[in-house]
Amino acid sequence: MSQILTREYLESLDAQDQLAPFRDAFQLPGSGQYFNGNSLGPRPKSTREAMKQVMEAHWGCHGGASWYGQDWMQRPARVGGKIAHLIGAAADEIIIADSTSINLAKMVMTALDIQAGRHVIVTEEGNFPTDLYILKDIAARVSGVEIRIVATEDLADALDDGCALLALTHVNYKTSRQHDMAALTKKAHEVGALALWDLSHSAGAVHVDLNASQADFAVGCTYKFLNGGPGAPAYLFVAKRHQNGAPALPGWMGHAAPFDFSPNFIPAEGMTRHLTGTPPILALAALECGVDLMVEAGVGAVVEKSARLGDVTIELVEQKLSDTDIEVLSPRHTAQRGAQICLKTVQASALVGRLENRGLIVDFRPPNIIRLGLAALYVRYQDIWDVVDALGEEYKALRRVEQA
Amino acid sequence: MSQILTREYLESLDAQDQLAPFRDAFQLPGSGQYFNGNSLGPRPKSTREAMKQVMEAHWGCHGGASWYGQDWMQRPARVGGKIAHLIGAAADEIIIADSTSINLAKMVMTALDIQAGRHVIVTEEGNFPTDLYILKDIAARVSGVEIRIVATEDLADALDDGCALLALTHVNYKTSRQHDMAALTKKAHEVGALALWDLSHSAGAVHVDLNASQADFAVGCTYKFLNGGPGAPAYLFVAKRHQNGAPALPGWMGHAAPFDFSPNFIPAEGMTRHLTGTPPILALAALECGVDLMVEAGVGAVVEKSARLGDVTIELVEQKLSDTDIEVLSPRHTAQRGAQICLKTVQASALVGRLENRGLIVDFRPPNIIRLGLAALYVRYQDIWDVVDALGEEYKALRRVEQA
Repeated sequence: MSQILTREYLESLDAQDQLAPFRDAFQLPGSGQYFNGNSLGPRPKSTREAMKQVMEAHWGCHGGASWYGQDWMQRPARVGGKIAHLIGAAADEIIIADSTSINLAKMVMTALDIQAGRHVIVTEEGNFPTDLYILKDIAARVSGVEIRIVATEDLADALDDGCALLALTHVNYKTSRQHDMAALTKKAHEVGALALWDLSHSAGAVHVDLNASQADFAVGCTYKFLNGGPGAPAYLFVAKRHQNGAPALPGWMGHAAPFDFSPNFIPAEGMTRHLTGTPPILALAALECGVDLMVEAGVGAVVEKSARLGDVTIELVEQKLSDTDIEVLSPRHTAQRGAQICLKTVQASALVGRLENRGLIVDFRPPNIIRLGLAALYVRYQDIWDVVDALGEEYKALRRVEQA
Repeated sequence: MSQILTREYLESLDAQDQLAPFRDAFQLPGSGQYFNGNSLGPRPKSTREAMKQVMEAHWGCHGGASWYGQDWMQRPARVGGKIAHLIGAAADEIIIADSTSINLAKMVMTALDIQAGRHVIVTEEGNFPTDLYILKDIAARVSGVEIRIVATEDLADALDDGCALLALTHVNYKTSRQHDMAALTKKAHEVGALALWDLSHSAGAVHVDLNASQADFAVGCTYKFLNGGPGAPAYLFVAKRHQNGAPALPGWMGHAAPFDFSPNFIPAEGMTRHLTGTPPILALAALECGVDLMVEAGVGAVVEKSARLGDVTIELVEQKLSDTDIEVLSPRHTAQRGAQICLKTVQASALVGRLENRGLIVDFRPPNIIRLGLAALYVRYQDIWDVVDALGEEYKALRRVEQA
């Protein structure tokens, strides 16, 4: 697009948008212009009935008998199988358990088990903090393990014959830069390392094909673009070729026969072995509502609209904010970018507060970044016009205050 | 009591029971005679409104702003502080996080950090499976760590100068035998070991005073006697004298300033450092309802009634089932017992099914154990009459079938 964008044109894109009806499936915070779904996705309206069912018809009416009678035991695999569909995995390669951080620890330890004799884990500066903390903690506890933290551009060079694992986050939380998963996984494999991907900012947002990329392990959170609810349980992926290994942090729910209460751990088949404690059934019920909406919408259409929303945002910022210091920090090319546009400005903190006062909910990351989450299921093209417009107005208002 | 018990007498105990009104605070499964609260406690009716508030008024109306605006960030400590009150800890010694299994792993690693130079962990045969699996996994991964698994009667002798940690479950899930926490902790301390207690079958059921017992660490689940919901998040306790240590499996939510997104982990003050991933807000909302009821009832009254329910159960089994093979497996003395009575009989599996057909929900543990959970907030004395009566009738019916 080289023509000047107008609000009318963006409204016409909304009118043609096949995903437009999904907006009504959510209870949207504030005035409904919510650009914070990259932090916490909004509530699917279907969670009300789903939670009522699991709380009152299952837990309330049947108590503990629900573990088998209401299929609670199957839920971690059932919801995992639906997420698998969104990120290019087989249904039996993903299960829901614990938090992203804990799952990352499990997957790193599982990878180290497989890679006996190799002790280096490569990751990058600027990876999400929890990923770095967990990696460093494992290195401190497990004899010989070393973490090699390098700049993004040095990742390929940092891989060598001593590497056990390349552990990266696919889409950066602060810049929205997207790694080439297939290329980096290939480089890791070339030196005999395995690849572990954190998909917290990817699932339900950008194109992910774990198996086409030959990824070995993945983890991810579900409360961003999957709209699973605050602190919703996370998922983990183990490629089928690695599923026979012993799980790390094994608990009774990963046992082949949990209700035999055997003192010896015999792993369950497949991904179930990676369960540790008792699955969080209430949280799973809410999560499944978010995942179901994404499956119903079709992840292909979602990824396509997300990319276009990003393109429009960048164009509008360039068109309308060229006389400010507001700078697009995210990559121009959609394949190199996540479903958020990050803007850099010394006024970031003040602008976010002023937008919030106008009912436009965006996100601030210190010291100087505004994040606009572009979730295709409920963000409209016209919303982008409004938020960029408001940014320009508030920027000028701030400047007037400064000059006064 | 040496007189013959009658249903009328038990009804009179119910009429005098100051806890009787709490029964109506729960949605009780089946016909309302629920002896499975030692596995999964029933649903507090207040969860409906609490869940609606957090889902619709918080998540729905405010989205991610709720982390601070609706005090979500404080919930793990707030609910933990209430549980602390039930088990003799200071409010700032307990926080809610993860599952019991994961918390156990964290606490064991924290203990090993403190006990540098000591490598033996003592535990007992018959400990809950997940506890054994986690201990063995840590021993397999962390260089030098050794697990010493001994019979209950050999625990004291197994403690020596090389021991880092004594890790036990306070009340046994299969027999309801209760350890003397203070005495065993003292023995551990005498040889320089620390003591870690799993309170999954203890909190809200029996008298626990962590600080009077000088316990160092504790973990526990919340979905049994605390009625927190299926797979509800667990808690962990670190005695104040150990709170300055680095946490194990550190994540961004345990950072002093999580929203600074620092690549270096700086632990938050106190128990918050033991958070790893993002707190499960929906599950916490349900859990808090269960904990609030226990706090309101008063743990002293609950413990006292639980013990009396157990005494009555044992007396009734002896009075009414003496012509069967049904044998009381749990200790006679209340101080040595949890809030469940375990019965041993070759007919266990068949009897549990027959009782269920009569609306009496009890629990089976293979190969031959019936567990009667005696949760003081909703189990009536008259319910015990009915379940023991039904056991006798169904036992005779089974025998008739066999003889036919």
